Formats: sequence, C-alpha cells, structure tokens
Amino acid sequence: MKKYYIGCDLGGTNLRAGLVNIESGEISNLTSVDTLAREGHDAVMVRMVELFRHVLDATGIGIDQLGGIGIGVPGVLDLEKGETLFLPNLPGTWPHVPLRDTISQVMGVPVALLNDARSITYGEWRFGAGRGVDTMACFTLGTGVGGGLVINNRLHLNLGGTAGELGHQTIEPNGLMCGCGNRGCLEAYASASALTTLAFKAVTQGLTTIIGKMVDYDLNQINPKLVYQAALQGDEIAIGIFKEIGYRLGLAIGNIIVSVGPRKVVIAGGVAKAGEFILEPIRQTLKERVYVTRMDEVEIVQAQLGNNSGVMGVAMYTAETAG
Amino acid sequence: MKKYYIGCDLGGTNLRAGLVNIESGEISNLTSVDTLAREGHDAVMVRMVELFRHVLDATGIGIDQLGGIGIGVPGVLDLEKGETLFLPNLPGTWPHVPLRDTISQVMGVPVALLNDARSITYGEWRFGAGRGVDTMACFTLGTGVGGGLVINNRLHLNLGGTAGELGHQTIEPNGLMCGCGNRGCLEAYASASALTTLAFKAVTQGLTTIIGKMVDYDLNQINPKLVYQAALQGDEIAIGIFKEIGYRLGLAIGNIIVSVGPRKVVIAGGVAKAGEFILEPIRQTLKERVYVTRMDEVEIVQAQLGNNSGVMGVAMYTAETAG
Repeated sequence: MKKYYIGCDLGGTNLRAGLVNIESGEISNLTSVDTLAREGHDAVMVRMVELFRHVLDATGIGIDQLGGIGIGVPGVLDLEKGETLFLPNLPGTWPHVPLRDTISQVMGVPVALLNDARSITYGEWRFGAGRGVDTMACFTLGTGVGGGLVINNRLHLNLGGTAGELGHQTIEPNGLMCGCGNRGCLEAYASASALTTLAFKAVTQGLTTIIGKMVDYDLNQINPKLVYQAALQGDEIAIGIFKEIGYRLGLAIGNIIVSVGPRKVVIAGGVAKAGEFILEPIRQTLKERVYVTRMDEVEIVQAQLGNNSGVMGVAMYTAETAG
Repeated sequence: MKKYYIGCDLGGTNLRAGLVNIESGEISNLTSVDTLAREGHDAVMVRMVELFRHVLDATGIGIDQLGGIGIGVPGVLDLEKGETLFLPNLPGTWPHVPLRDTISQVMGVPVALLNDARSITYGEWRFGAGRGVDTMACFTLGTGVGGGLVINNRLHLNLGGTAGELGHQTIEPNGLMCGCGNRGCLEAYASASALTTLAFKAVTQGLTTIIGKMVDYDLNQINPKLVYQAALQGDEIAIGIFKEIGYRLGLAIGNIIVSVGPRKVVIAGGVAKAGEFILEPIRQTLKERVYVTRMDEVEIVQAQLGNNSGVMGVAMYTAETAG
C-alpha cells in the first residue's frame, strides 16, 4: 500500500483537498478553492483536477507515489457505479454523474467516492474521537445532519453506501418538514439552519436575549457560532436553544444506542463546537430515556479533528478499498 | 462440530425445549412444560434440567453426542458472565442468576444464553425468512416488542448482547409510557397488549365493530387472534387497528433502514400472523417517509418458522459460539 493519498471534500461553497499521509493521518498542503457549483458538474470536475495537480506540485509528490484520490461528496451516491445521484446542497442536479471514473481516468490513479458524513465518521474513528472502539456512531451537524456508523471495525456502507443516514431518522412523527420529503427527521431539528431559525424566532418574539443586539438586529447575521458566543455569556435563550437541539439529538442517539449499541457516539460539525452546551442535554435525555442497555459503557463525545476529518477519512477509506 | 444441540425457550408461561439438528435446522421431540416461574429461579433451573434430560431420553441421543444447550431468555442478560439481569415478564427477580454456568455444570456440556428475540432473529436468518441476505432486522411482536440485527453475516450483540432492542426506540417523544421507563417506545404501540387495548377501547367507545359481539361482550377475551379474525371478516375497526400498528412499526423500521440498511426486515411473533393487514401499512409508511436510501432493495416480510424459530436460533447460535 502506498503512503500518500489525496483526500478531497466537495462542499457547496468550497472545494478542499490535501495530501494525506495514511500512516500518520497528517495532512499537508490543504488547499481550498471556490466550488463554483453553479457552473455545473463538468466545470467542477475540471476544477477538481486542477486542484489535485496543484496539491501534488506543492508537495513535490510525483503521481507514481500517489496511491489514489478519495472524494467526500455531500449527498446520495451509487458506490458500486461511482456515480453521484442527488446532491441537495449543490445547485444544479448531479444525476448519474460518473465522478469516480472521470477523475480516475484523467488523473491515472484509483479514485473512491464516499458520502461526506461517512468520510468524517471514518476520519474520527481512525485518527480522532472514535479511536479504539469497535463500534461507533457519528452525527455531523452542519447545513444538514449527516451520520455514519462503524460496526465491528468496519465503516458500515449498506444499500449502496446510504446506510448511516442518522439525520433522517423520524424523531417527531407529525413534526417539521425535512428537505428529504419526510416529516420530523432529526435534520429538521438539529441542523445549523434549524438552530439559526430558533434564534431568529426568539429575537423576533421579543424574548430576553442578547442575540439580537449582537447582530445589531440584522437578523440574517445570526449563525451557530454567534449563538454559542451568547451562550458563553450566559444568555438563557441561547443556552435553551442548545438544550432543545441536544434533546432532539438525544432521542435519535438513544435509538441508535438501543439498536446498534455503539461504544462511542461522536458529535461533529459546526454546531458540535458548542461542546458541553449540547453534550450535556444529550446525556440528560439519554439518562431519562434509555433503560434496556448498558448506558454506562457508551460515551458521548465531541469530534476531535475539526474541519479536516472528512479529508483524512476519505483518504484512509480510499487507501483501504481502492488503493 | 457436533450435529445435535438442545434449543430451549424460557417463556413466562411455558418452558420449551427440543433437539435441533444444526445441519438441517430440524427439531425433534419439542416438549413444553409449565415454567412455574413463581416458584423462583432455582426451581425453574431444576425443571430445565429435567426437561433437557427428558428430551435426550426421548430422542435416544447420548450426552456424548450433544454439542451443547442454548437457552433463549426473555430479558436483559450479561452475555460475558452468562447471567440473567432483568426478566420483566417473569415473576420474581432474576438479578445475576448464573444460569449459563449452573446448567452447564449440571449437564456437563457447553451452554449459551441469548435474548429470546435475538434467538428468533438468528433462527429466521439461518433457516427462515431472512435466509441469504447479509444484513437483516427482525421485530418480534409479542407481549413486548423485541428485536435483533444480523449485520454482515453476524448476529449483532454489542453492549453485552443488548444491541438489537428495536422495540425500545422512541417513536413518539411525548407518547405512551413503556414498561422500560421511557415514553413513546415502539413497544408501547405495537405489542400484543397494545393491540388488545386498542380493540378494547374501540368496543367500549361504542364504535361499529364486530369485536364486542365475537366475545359476547366479555372484553377480557379480546386478543390479537380475535382482532385478526374480525379483520378477515372485513371489520373496519379491526383493519384500522392493524393499520395503526403498522404505521407505528413503519416509523421504527424506517429508522432502522436509514441507519443500518438491512436487505430484509422480518416481522415475527403472534401479532405478525396478521400478515398483509400489518405488512401493507408498514410498506405504505415507508413509502411516505424514507427517501434517502434505496428502498427498492429492502424487503419487508413475515417470519416463516412460527413458534420454533427461537429454539432453532439459539441452538444454532450455541453451536457456532459455545459448542
């Protein structure tokens, strides 16, 4: 097995790639460019190839030393065919785009695709908060709520890689509409936009909170980081928002614990940076709701690798499957 | 590996055991005696040993030909220690009863314990409705709602064998109290007693149904089989009750599909005998709610082995782990 793989994170806004040393998990020359997804999938693939060549040039690694390229993709994939099926956060449609084989042919190395949340899951399991356990669940709280499972020391990828969509569990049968078409998915309650909406509503309802003042009442400026800063200053509304999201997460995590029985549950993504503000209500909810298993053997922890877990994870996954 | 194992099903009412040919899945001399659980765990263990000796005598199999004994237990176990922890449907408490080692010492063969629903899961996977798929979920609808998962051709037994408790997923956060201490578990909506309660209420509320007449208005006689017979006669209330239970099951099954991605979901236990009355609303619910995966690759099917799947499954499990 070769030592170097490129890991790439295809995001709605940024396209990021770096060279990953799969023995150490170290990333070098991580580079970010605008995705410019509105230009369409062909243009994005051209930019990808440019980015990969740039990373190789910058690191001085020849193509003969490169084991392969892994691409983390935000959406539904067909892993067998190496195609994108549905990428909800990118403009335009990407139905049956042969992303894997196109990049592989142009670059001349093996390429693997993986859902972005599963990439983060694998990165955190190999090098981050999930190290050392055989079974782990990961929830990624971002624009949407993604997820992933490692079961018996294997990334769990059933049904074409769609297994692990932990954000699309129904936690409130007659609840909020979710972007997926269902009602009451966890995603509708625990994503960054769900959080922002809660804060927005609190301000417009005139509740006692410093959030409005923090953005000079330009409510479009509200974001999860700002709500976190308000919570740090003791703002009860901000703290309550994280409590609500933690409660919803607790319901979904409880369901995964009784069914799959992970030793660790890792909370990743932007919203997870709120740390104990969100972890504490998760643990409280589990304490009140999960009785039929050994809860004392399950740890709920924050992700450790920050924004780089996806790049790291998809590179590792590529090394172990396609390289 | 030896060919013959005893499989035993420890129930609240009956204690059943038979000799299982683990090559063919055939059971011989299946014998049932009263559990008499009120006499306490020591008396039950004595009855077990008598039953096992009876089965051996009846089949003419010597103890030297017996590979081991598997016992399916309705409750929470400590698989590592071979102890019972909590058996909600048996009178008296069974905390830290060393069931495995006690029976093993007296009988002189290896013994394995397994939760009863996981025993059924494994039986249906090896010899029944779940044959041939690598990943399967099973829901057992009885006094309670149990469950089990086979993942990548292995019975999934994390957290001391408690993983797979699919009936204790929260499907209605502010819902009915469940016997486990949580609110809104699937079990509170889809067990035999939940079904009976729905029928009971329909009759007392004066709804138009033949159920009351069928029991001469002795409402304690209502049971799932009777509601099924009413449904067969076109009784709309009875059909509606199975629809309601199917809907609740659909919520929980949907959550398992998006997270674990089984190829088959097997519905077992008494309530499952209603067949399409319950399978059809499950499929309808999944159609309306599950979007992010390949639903066309997931089959929802009725169990095939009837009451013997647990005896068969726990014998097979014992052969593969303890024998």
